[in-house]
Amino acid sequence: MATIPDSHRNLLEGANIAHLGTVRPDGLVHVNPMWFLFDGENVRFTHTRKRGKFRNLQENPAMTISVVDPDDEYRYLEVRGRLSEIVDDPTGAFYQELERRYSGSSEAPPPDAADRVILVMTPEATSTK
Amino acid sequence: MATIPDSHRNLLEGANIAHLGTVRPDGLVHVNPMWFLFDGENVRFTHTRKRGKFRNLQENPAMTISVVDPDDEYRYLEVRGRLSEIVDDPTGAFYQELERRYSGSSEAPPPDAADRVILVMTPEATSTK
Repeated sequence: MATIPDSHRNLLEGANIAHLGTVRPDGLVHVNPMWFLFDGENVRFTHTRKRGKFRNLQENPAMTISVVDPDDEYRYLEVRGRLSEIVDDPTGAFYQELERRYSGSSEAPPPDAADRVILVMTPEATSTK
Repeated sequence: MATIPDSHRNLLEGANIAHLGTVRPDGLVHVNPMWFLFDGENVRFTHTRKRGKFRNLQENPAMTISVVDPDDEYRYLEVRGRLSEIVDDPTGAFYQELERRYSGSSEAPPPDAADRVILVMTPEATSTK
């Protein structure tokens, strides 16, 4: 398991947007912006069982994030890893935790709470600039 | 070839940072922030023959970018595609064009000009939010 370099750890500790890359069954890459929470060891994302990224990860667990420093767009951290666990989040509690973290408040569970899961990514390597 | 939706075309026309995903020979995904130029049809990046992404693309031409609106982090465009061409840029002229576009000026060719190439990505599909 990879250790996050101290020099760039703050990029995982802040409420920054991560661009998460996975591989689609058609062989093309999928990249999109995501909320995340770094628990000191793994990177956790809220997602649902009904969407494309969930299906991608069933076939290929590779997942990598790129996070740019919002105050310096030439400073970034890449964390490469794989899906290590899927945790059910049937009340949407983790979604609400991230919503509060990123927007400051969370009024209600998401409408798709029943399908919500937490994707847990275990870091294997990092790159920085 | 994919058409870029008019609703999100401005994200490709501005000097925004793209997070570019490729697939590494070890099966992990590589994602990092990149300058780019959209020529109305293809997306062009400056790169060198000596770096990891160039090697990744030799083995697997899949490449996808995610671009977030700097004024609204919940609005984004994903362009999925493949490498269609590699153009030599031995004077670093394209690097300097991007440097001017992103930083406003370019004093001199990059020190690695001799190895510089333009990676040309042809869009095959898009997603937006």
